[in-house]
Amino acid sequence: MLCVGLDTDINKIPAFLRQNFDNPVLEFNKRIIKACSDFAVAFKINTAFYEARGVEGWHDLAETIKMIPRDIFIIADAKRADIGNTSKMYAHAFFEVLNADAVTVAPYMGFDSLSPFLEYKDKWTIVLALTSNAGSKDFQYLRCDDDEYLFEKVLEKASRWGTPSNMMFVAGATHPEELSDIRSIIPYHFLLVPGIGAQGGDLHSVLSKAMNKDYGLLVNSSRGIIYASDNEDFDTAARLKAKELRDIMAAYITE
Amino acid sequence: MLCVGLDTDINKIPAFLRQNFDNPVLEFNKRIIKACSDFAVAFKINTAFYEARGVEGWHDLAETIKMIPRDIFIIADAKRADIGNTSKMYAHAFFEVLNADAVTVAPYMGFDSLSPFLEYKDKWTIVLALTSNAGSKDFQYLRCDDDEYLFEKVLEKASRWGTPSNMMFVAGATHPEELSDIRSIIPYHFLLVPGIGAQGGDLHSVLSKAMNKDYGLLVNSSRGIIYASDNEDFDTAARLKAKELRDIMAAYITE
Repeated sequence: MLCVGLDTDINKIPAFLRQNFDNPVLEFNKRIIKACSDFAVAFKINTAFYEARGVEGWHDLAETIKMIPRDIFIIADAKRADIGNTSKMYAHAFFEVLNADAVTVAPYMGFDSLSPFLEYKDKWTIVLALTSNAGSKDFQYLRCDDDEYLFEKVLEKASRWGTPSNMMFVAGATHPEELSDIRSIIPYHFLLVPGIGAQGGDLHSVLSKAMNKDYGLLVNSSRGIIYASDNEDFDTAARLKAKELRDIMAAYITE
Repeated sequence: MLCVGLDTDINKIPAFLRQNFDNPVLEFNKRIIKACSDFAVAFKINTAFYEARGVEGWHDLAETIKMIPRDIFIIADAKRADIGNTSKMYAHAFFEVLNADAVTVAPYMGFDSLSPFLEYKDKWTIVLALTSNAGSKDFQYLRCDDDEYLFEKVLEKASRWGTPSNMMFVAGATHPEELSDIRSIIPYHFLLVPGIGAQGGDLHSVLSKAMNKDYGLLVNSSRGIIYASDNEDFDTAARLKAKELRDIMAAYITE
């Protein structure tokens, strides 16, 4: 169930990479991917960290996706969505040009902003429901209509636009008390769960509350794994951290 | 008040450009910018249409921004927003690397997803409130708490996070009956108004209901201007269409 987040910030990677390699970001990603591939079922690439370096960053984003073994699921964490003709362009960008398996989308603009993503066969659309950040309190917890929270409305309505075979939802580990509720609204969909590690969410709570019979979870860790060490052993440290998380998950599956 | 949208689709631009120029998209944008600069106060660049062509598209996005005269306002229509450390990267990408004056953002993730954009001096954050598409009905019209619509909640809450000098809101021309309501909630903020032209919104309704004493509007037209002709006269046709819209606006200002 482990997803490793490649939120690669050129200013946070070990200094020796910046000093010794023409493309330190790609070298970092290559080593992280190699080190974690035995334990990760998915890599999540946060597009912001690549766009922040302009054309060069967009190049590295494309090259990073090519380096990931094809049996590992690739999520473009892009938080896109716009009117239909525009979402169609984003879907083309992420599913065809970059060849990601999944892309994260924001639900605010409704059905026709998500449907162009859902039209792709064998691709996945991951809809923000309850995010891991403090700002999730601002709108996602508004009481709507019949006293449901906005994030519950999003789960109910958006889950009817896709199926458990082409749609997932983002549910932050920082809201353990809501995970059971979310699981009851969408018993069959996979959840992409950010927020363990640097953001303070607890892996055990996530596993005990949100697993389903297919496991049904992709639990992401970014900074906690990729920046586990800032020395030359960073890939070994990342591997150990990934294994540690994988072992906790494996124990829950065995139980 | 005219904003021209550079939603440049390489498959929709005149064929002679694709046949005769190494970079037909940049040639198209260069001529549209030149043709419309007398009448537009802003250009809005829809990032999806550039990302759909990968690295090359991202290059063209950057080059297009450089071609726009510096006295014309530049909006990156990117619909971004993520957790704080990620939005910080997006803000860097659009405000520093690309040097846009404004970026559109989705409100779903709340305060800390928007604050990194608002921290930039002399830059603008344009928050989705009521979008122009059919999917705006799905969540933006949910009744919240004290019977207000979600888009009204967004206007009230988000407008307290910024000021009329660093924040605008998107309000679609396809909702003429709501524009007066929106203007009453945020009397001083500029509105970016998409949806006239191809999407069916009426410019006269927008002007009569949503202007304030500073005019307070950026009314966008994309397809209606840039694809006014698909022949060699496309730039002249775009200029005429831009002038036509500008003249309607000018008449309202005079009145």
